[in-house]
Amino acid sequence: MIFTKTTIDDSYWKVSIDNPPVNVFDPEFSVQLRSLIDELEENQNLKVVVFESANPEFYVAHAELVNIFEFPKGEGKTGLSKSWPDIAKRLEQAPFVSIASIRGRARGLGSEFIQAFDMRFASKEKAIFSQPEIGIGSFPGGGGLERLHLLTGKARALEIILSGDDFDAETAAAYGWINRAFADSELDAFVDNLARRIASFDLKIIQKIKAVMNERVVIPKNEHITETQIAFFASLTEPEARTRIKALLEKGLQTYGEVELNLGKYL
Amino acid sequence: MIFTKTTIDDSYWKVSIDNPPVNVFDPEFSVQLRSLIDELEENQNLKVVVFESANPEFYVAHAELVNIFEFPKGEGKTGLSKSWPDIAKRLEQAPFVSIASIRGRARGLGSEFIQAFDMRFASKEKAIFSQPEIGIGSFPGGGGLERLHLLTGKARALEIILSGDDFDAETAAAYGWINRAFADSELDAFVDNLARRIASFDLKIIQKIKAVMNERVVIPKNEHITETQIAFFASLTEPEARTRIKALLEKGLQTYGEVELNLGKYL
Amino acid sequence: MIFTKTTIDDSYWKVSIDNPPVNVFDPEFSVQLRSLIDELEENQNLKVVVFESANPEFYVAHAELVNIFEFPKGEGKTGLSKSWPDIAKRLEQAPFVSIASIRGRARGLGSEFIQAFDMRFASKEKAIFSQPEIGIGSFPGGGGLERLHLLTGKARALEIILSGDDFDAETAAAYGWINRAFADSELDAFVDNLARRIASFDLKIIQKIKAVMNERVVIPKNEHITETQIAFFASLTEPEARTRIKALLEKGLQTYGEVELNLGKYL
Repeated sequence: MIFTKTTIDDSYWKVSIDNPPVNVFDPEFSVQLRSLIDELEENQNLKVVVFESANPEFYVAHAELVNIFEFPKGEGKTGLSKSWPDIAKRLEQAPFVSIASIRGRARGLGSEFIQAFDMRFASKEKAIFSQPEIGIGSFPGGGGLERLHLLTGKARALEIILSGDDFDAETAAAYGWINRAFADSELDAFVDNLARRIASFDLKIIQKIKAVMNERVVIPKNEHITETQIAFFASLTEPEARTRIKALLEKGLQTYGEVELNLGKYL
Repeated sequence: MIFTKTTIDDSYWKVSIDNPPVNVFDPEFSVQLRSLIDELEENQNLKVVVFESANPEFYVAHAELVNIFEFPKGEGKTGLSKSWPDIAKRLEQAPFVSIASIRGRARGLGSEFIQAFDMRFASKEKAIFSQPEIGIGSFPGGGGLERLHLLTGKARALEIILSGDDFDAETAAAYGWINRAFADSELDAFVDNLARRIASFDLKIIQKIKAVMNERVVIPKNEHITETQIAFFASLTEPEARTRIKALLEKGLQTYGEVELNLGKYL
Repeated sequence: MIFTKTTIDDSYWKVSIDNPPVNVFDPEFSVQLRSLIDELEENQNLKVVVFESANPEFYVAHAELVNIFEFPKGEGKTGLSKSWPDIAKRLEQAPFVSIASIRGRARGLGSEFIQAFDMRFASKEKAIFSQPEIGIGSFPGGGGLERLHLLTGKARALEIILSGDDFDAETAAAYGWINRAFADSELDAFVDNLARRIASFDLKIIQKIKAVMNERVVIPKNEHITETQIAFFASLTEPEARTRIKALLEKGLQTYGEVELNLGKYL
């Protein structure tokens, strides 16, 4: 089980992510995450869910690259690909509030994963963020080029995506990539207090606030997400990407060690 | 008189807000504010107006809840409700520049009040911000759900509105809710210097800059503001809201004391 | 030669700006910059270009005001004025990445100059930013009122443009005017490392990222840029502007000295 659910009470759930050794987002992660989202949507009393990592060094490392063409095929109920974009859209439109509490690395699809939540809080000491796709001869697809600039603006999104480099939590907060960075010793108390507050309020009002906000703001368009997802998968079949991915896998990508810990340096 | 005007000169006015004990925005506040806006608009030499509070602990506490259905009815010249949305739109479109200089609490309608100004500066030690409506079984209506995300982005607006919690001035500045936070001892000199600079420039140019800026940026739509205002008032008639409001009033809401000073904790 | 090019390699160029005494953006600056952009566009291997100033006190001071009606006339290939807006649009749409590395003052057209780059990094000790046009009885035209709010939001853009005052690099970073501020001793290493990283990645991917990003975000409209440029030049013929410009020139504007060093104070 990649996702372990803790029921604080009927309205407040916590989910722990554990996919050793480095929490890659692989096809099985996608399948189990879909089941979990089904379960979250079915609990009509759910007000708030917090996603944490069981591994303090890795939140979600990135997409698994060896079996990347084995992700679930077809469209989900939002009309987007079941592999991930459909799940992201369902979190955005969910009647409950989703919070990412981040320790460890959230890179590539891991960064896109946290962007699908309503809010993001991170440990100053332990969280690291990047969009390293350029380092494998590709770019963030299926939402990555659609959501990040809504948080950070264009100039900072270009810096993040064109550099592929690692960013600490304080820079991520300054850029709007996350809501706020906290000292590691304060993160859990802050997030738990926030979740308990939200869980203490009226469910109908929570749903009204999310629904109106989604109507007022710019949200990514399905056709844009689908367009860059198709282009992303196509780019992976190019010689440039295959060479870069092969070299990184040989250096230790997707295993615990230097390359995953300091990916920015190895791209 | 809730609003006391000081004429620095014909082009620079200061307004002090005083509605003891905690500067609630009540029906009389609305009536007098409308008269004041009429006067501001009629002074064709006015370039800049600064709004301060006479009470260093409260800028504008929030909407008065006992007589909330007694606010002025009907539409103002912008086509929006006279109660407040029409005033906010007139400040946005005004030929003069408006600045909020903030000490004390600006919560709920008090937060929406400051969002209607062209710029916001606040005391690091004394300013506190929140949208506590969720704590009374409601949500920010009549502009609250329309303006905040334009300043803070969606993720931080959701955090503010769904938590109902108190935010200090440095966090408010980091989120874009206000332009900047200053040490309390520096706030007045900064704002006065800024206002005097603006007052030293050409009136036609000031008006041109505001007019073009309002054409270039996204500004809230009247129909959205009206929609959430109607929904806000409707929510107050629900049992959930009536119970929550009654409990808070019994604890001391709208009187000087613990509940108003630390409202975030009592919701 | 105002622009000196250093070829680090075929994919990474550096350009140094030198137009003594204070790096004004004069008609000759415009002519030489156009030639340089032609050369940048013609190098089909170019991935990244960094613009620095040869003068640590002035990045680009502002538009030259005595010969301001002598700027190149007519439209460039983007349909925008050759004087500057066409160059800005070509940088935005360029197949290469442009980075401003800023020491010294970037005011008025100098601030608009840096806004046309993909990213901006600045020295905490040495960079100063402003839009001082209001102090000469005018306003930022030809892109200034169109781009700044996309970086800073409306409230901070109004503060910058209506005050005409000087802002340090840390405030500029907090406002989103620049990506980040670095200690002066760290700026060069950061920018060089970033440029080398980008130069190490695949050209087609870099171009794809910029192209998709420009489709996803709001970019200024040509007709808006042209509208404010025409209005800007018209404002300079008004008595208010002529009087203000004459007074500043007599105090030493456009020569090295107190007025150019601390322009915010002298407006």
